[in-house]
Amino acid sequence: MSTFLEHQNWRYATKKFDSTKKISTEDLNTLKEAIRLSSSSYGLQLYKVFIIENSELRAKIQPAAWGQTQIVDASHLIVFANQTNITEADIDGYLKNVAETRNIPETALSGYGDFMKGGILSRSDDDKANWTSKQTYLALGNLLNAAAELKIDVTPMEGFVPAQVNEILGFNELGLNASLIAPIGYRSQEDDTQHYAKVRKSNEELFITL
Amino acid sequence: MSTFLEHQNWRYATKKFDSTKKISTEDLNTLKEAIRLSSSSYGLQLYKVFIIENSELRAKIQPAAWGQTQIVDASHLIVFANQTNITEADIDGYLKNVAETRNIPETALSGYGDFMKGGILSRSDDDKANWTSKQTYLALGNLLNAAAELKIDVTPMEGFVPAQVNEILGFNELGLNASLIAPIGYRSQEDDTQHYAKVRKSNEELFITL
Repeated sequence: MSTFLEHQNWRYATKKFDSTKKISTEDLNTLKEAIRLSSSSYGLQLYKVFIIENSELRAKIQPAAWGQTQIVDASHLIVFANQTNITEADIDGYLKNVAETRNIPETALSGYGDFMKGGILSRSDDDKANWTSKQTYLALGNLLNAAAELKIDVTPMEGFVPAQVNEILGFNELGLNASLIAPIGYRSQEDDTQHYAKVRKSNEELFITL
Repeated sequence: MSTFLEHQNWRYATKKFDSTKKISTEDLNTLKEAIRLSSSSYGLQLYKVFIIENSELRAKIQPAAWGQTQIVDASHLIVFANQTNITEADIDGYLKNVAETRNIPETALSGYGDFMKGGILSRSDDDKANWTSKQTYLALGNLLNAAAELKIDVTPMEGFVPAQVNEILGFNELGLNASLIAPIGYRSQEDDTQHYAKVRKSNEELFITL
C-alpha cells in the first residue's frame, strides 16, 4: 500500500489530546514548510497562518468553538485566516517574488500581471473572500497529510464562530477572517474514537468514470 | 527531510503532459482511494468525482478551459463536482453509513443527526454551495499529495467556465457544479517550467506565532 494511504488510514479527527505532549520545534518546522509549500490559486497564498501556543489565548478562543477541549489540550492551535480583500499590492508582491526567485526582470511579468489583475480585482468582495477561504482548505490538507507522516494528530474544525475568533485575534483590523482552525498534537490513549472504523462513501457512490 | 516535503518539492503545476503515457489501473485506484479517504466537514463528502479518459469528451471540455492543452494531453481528467444543494436525505444517508460501518443502531445517532440537520439545512442556497465547494479543495489536496508519491503529475485548475463544464457534463440535472478540474498524468520532458524554482511566500510573510 502507498505510504500516503497508510497515513490516511492512521489519522482521524482527534477528540481528546494528550495535554502533556508537545510537538518538537523540528516537527513544527516541517508542518510549517508543508503549509508553506501548499498549492494555491495562481500561487498567491492570500492567507496568513497563526500558530498559537499561548494558553491564555487558546482559553479565550475555546468558548468561540463550542467549548471543544482540543483547543486547549492540544500542543498548538493553528488558525488559517483568509484575506477578506485582494488588492493590486497583493498581486504586485507576488510578481516581485516570482522575479526575485527566478531571477528574471519584473518587466517580463507585466503582461501576466495585467492578466491576473483583470481576472481577480474586478470580483465582488464576497467572491474574493470566498475564493481566498477556499485556498485555506488546500493548506489545511497539506497540514493534515504532513502531520500524519510524523504521527502528529490534527483535528480540522469548521465548528466555531468566525466573528468571535476574528474579534479575539484582532483579524478585522488586519483584513483577515478565521476560515479554519486546527488543534495539533498527540491523541490521548483515552480517546476511544481512535478505534472507530473510518466512515466514507463507497467508490460506487463517489466516482463516475467516463 | 520528510518524504512529504520531498514530494511537495517534486511536484509542480504541469504545463505540458506527455500524451503517450497512461496511468496504470493500480495507480489510478490508489489516487481514487486517496480522494475517497479525504477529510470533509462532518465526513459528509457532498461531492462527486468524475474520472474522464474519453478523448471526445475532453476535447469538448477544453474550450471551456481557455484551450489549455493539459486537458486533452494528460492521461485522465479529474472533475470535482460539488453538490449545489443539501437535503435531509444526504444526512440520513451519512448516518446510515455510520451505523452500518460501526455496527451501531441508527437510533443511537438520531440526536447527532438532528444536530447536523439543524446546523446545515437552514443555510442559504449560496452558503450550501460555497461550503460543499470548499470541501472539494481538501479532496484535491489529497489527490495532489497521493499523486506526488507515485510521481504522477497533476495540474490543479480553477481556470475554466463552470457553467460551460456543467452544461457539457450534464451537471445541472444532477444538482452538481464543476468546482475544480485536474488533468493527471506524466510531465513532458519538453515542459521547461518543471525546472523553474518554486515561488512561495517566506515564513515571515505567512506565519504569525502567538
